[in-house]
Amino acid sequence: MAEPAENGRVGFDWISFTTDYGTSDAFVVICKGVIAGIAPHSQVLDVTHAIGAQDVRRGATVLASAVPYLPPSVHVAVVDPGVGTARRGVVVVAGASVLVGPDNGLLLPAAEALGGVSNCFELTEPRFRLSSVSATFHGRDIFAPAAAHLANGEPPSAFGAAVDPAGLVRLPAPVLRVADGVIEAEIVGVDHFGNLQLAAGPDELVAMGVGLGDRVSVRCGQSSRGAVVGRTFGDVAEGGLLVHVDSAGAVAIAVNAGSAAAVLGGETGIVVIRRG
Amino acid sequence: MAEPAENGRVGFDWISFTTDYGTSDAFVVICKGVIAGIAPHSQVLDVTHAIGAQDVRRGATVLASAVPYLPPSVHVAVVDPGVGTARRGVVVVAGASVLVGPDNGLLLPAAEALGGVSNCFELTEPRFRLSSVSATFHGRDIFAPAAAHLANGEPPSAFGAAVDPAGLVRLPAPVLRVADGVIEAEIVGVDHFGNLQLAAGPDELVAMGVGLGDRVSVRCGQSSRGAVVGRTFGDVAEGGLLVHVDSAGAVAIAVNAGSAAAVLGGETGIVVIRRG
Amino acid sequence: MAEPAENGRVGFDWISFTTDYGTSDAFVVICKGVIAGIAPHSQVLDVTHAIGAQDVRRGATVLASAVPYLPPSVHVAVVDPGVGTARRGVVVVAGASVLVGPDNGLLLPAAEALGGVSNCFELTEPRFRLSSVSATFHGRDIFAPAAAHLANGEPPSAFGAAVDPAGLVRLPAPVLRVADGVIEAEIVGVDHFGNLQLAAGPDELVAMGVGLGDRVSVRCGQSSRGAVVGRTFGDVAEGGLLVHVDSAGAVAIAVNAGSAAAVLGGETGIVVIRRG
Repeated sequence: MAEPAENGRVGFDWISFTTDYGTSDAFVVICKGVIAGIAPHSQVLDVTHAIGAQDVRRGATVLASAVPYLPPSVHVAVVDPGVGTARRGVVVVAGASVLVGPDNGLLLPAAEALGGVSNCFELTEPRFRLSSVSATFHGRDIFAPAAAHLANGEPPSAFGAAVDPAGLVRLPAPVLRVADGVIEAEIVGVDHFGNLQLAAGPDELVAMGVGLGDRVSVRCGQSSRGAVVGRTFGDVAEGGLLVHVDSAGAVAIAVNAGSAAAVLGGETGIVVIRRG
Repeated sequence: MAEPAENGRVGFDWISFTTDYGTSDAFVVICKGVIAGIAPHSQVLDVTHAIGAQDVRRGATVLASAVPYLPPSVHVAVVDPGVGTARRGVVVVAGASVLVGPDNGLLLPAAEALGGVSNCFELTEPRFRLSSVSATFHGRDIFAPAAAHLANGEPPSAFGAAVDPAGLVRLPAPVLRVADGVIEAEIVGVDHFGNLQLAAGPDELVAMGVGLGDRVSVRCGQSSRGAVVGRTFGDVAEGGLLVHVDSAGAVAIAVNAGSAAAVLGGETGIVVIRRG
Repeated sequence: MAEPAENGRVGFDWISFTTDYGTSDAFVVICKGVIAGIAPHSQVLDVTHAIGAQDVRRGATVLASAVPYLPPSVHVAVVDPGVGTARRGVVVVAGASVLVGPDNGLLLPAAEALGGVSNCFELTEPRFRLSSVSATFHGRDIFAPAAAHLANGEPPSAFGAAVDPAGLVRLPAPVLRVADGVIEAEIVGVDHFGNLQLAAGPDELVAMGVGLGDRVSVRCGQSSRGAVVGRTFGDVAEGGLLVHVDSAGAVAIAVNAGSAAAVLGGETGIVVIRRG
């Protein structure tokens, strides 16, 4: 998908866009307008703009779940409680893609999903910013213009000084403990259907010693319920609780024709899965 | 709009996309990324991703209302409570367009709005799926790839065995009874403004014997209110109840500068319109 | 961005789209389908479809905030309580762009943000409408087709009789009073983060006699709170109240890591800022 741009450099046809801006104001379209003015050939794929205000961890999780399925892209993401303070902006090269955003932990899980950080640069070059930079809308003034110039084939190294990837801000790892017969895992996401995604994968199910068809108990806060380890929602009766490996490869709790978040009464915290 | 693709076959420039995925997770963009990787020339038109979770009837109604106004397209729709069970996926040819989705009643009203089903094929061919198919996200693994390959000009018959259109799953018809002076009709949709769309058309208004300017009563559940048969919202005072033929050609109940759903206290069930 | 269309006339590559249609029905995609059928080369930039039902002022504010950052475009906007009544539709030429919508005050602030109205025409020409025009969905039947024909290079004067710009409907100006040590200004918008945007700019802060770092009190309804004049959210402690010039150049009230609308308990009305 990466093709030589008009200036002979290799650019990108696709820009993905992830924010906590919501869609009821003009913030998103203003950034897209800036991109259209600089890189009119590029096409923007909206990941989501419904990240909770300033919820960097949720933004990181959603972006990381998306990038393996997108073509080589500039991934620009803005969930940025520190806008206008000393926090850096960065360009991160990972796999065949480039990520752009604040250095606050938002980009790193996606970079790892793309194969890991190969290079990183600070976003300081003034000619890749709008001529006037506000204190509160760096999506418009810094990150969207940077994404558009990258789509036009500007090399990441043109944006500023190299940054040691080891020095990038990293979010704390979510809780995950496994023993014979039990997993304790933090909820890392609740989707639109109320499915609870945990910080555990299929290896942890093997390690705790359960497989398809086994009965388990699921505890979340004060609430504890029986569940079945299965493949899909229809493996349990309507209203029944399912433990499965979801489409992103994570252990998840679901309710057939219902919401696990509603049934278990929780959207954050630790879930304990016990055998039997 | 249908033009020869690079392989010399006739494909599609447009793919419409209808789901109950919401827009707060990455589900929608993941499907778009899969499409972009296979058919980068295609443009995706979002119908809506706000269908209620697993509300197949609502998905069918919204999609059918849209397709007459879209250019020849691949219409991919996923509202799929049976994902991962034995329910089939299908490709349905209708008019100059092709529909892709689960065989659960979702596609058929749109196919009829496009002139009826001319051919239908099961979606089984492995080379038009992602290499690994999950149990819970066939939008990503089966339906989006199929839509992209159709946009590239793959013939519908390449996707699997022919299916008898008469054997496609069909949703039960909504309630509609007409007599002199009365219509009883099921609510088939409530839009963003609170307008109630009924399973009746202009012929039923003629059959019950009312015309523009006539007074009627409208009953919904326990609530009954006077209304006027008119053309547009301004035909009644602010807060007044209007019975009209809406922009989709259906009899609808509206409130000028207000919400009929709120005034009548109902979003589902039977509405009774009486003359006088 | 404006390039000769196939017919040799100068058209537009970009169409921006602003409505109160919401995204849970098919209204938006129906309009986009109509555009795609007439002007398939054009690309639609969604400003927002989440304007409150029939909130013409909010639509005008959001559109005006977006247009300075968009490439030369056809800006079509539909927030239209008077649909189907005698209110006019208009094409407004402003700067390098053209605006299309109802003559109810919706377009004028955006036209002024683009440099002012240079020409205006009524939207009456039948050949630029759908063949059948409904009483309730002029977005589909009149405004979207007009936008698409403008994108194809039809001159604005082809759509109907010239209209005196001075005769366009204008919304009443919001309240703004400034004296030494005090500003009284109407809230003109509340964004997704709860920031309150006021009908005042940096000149009013100078006129009342405060600058960066000064302490002020902010009153909204019965609620009064201390605040600091600053540049960005991080200039006050978490939960602290900030008075700043926002990214659109307006005086705004914000709360660091919180919602000013929630803290002050208001989304409409007059805010009073006092020195000291």
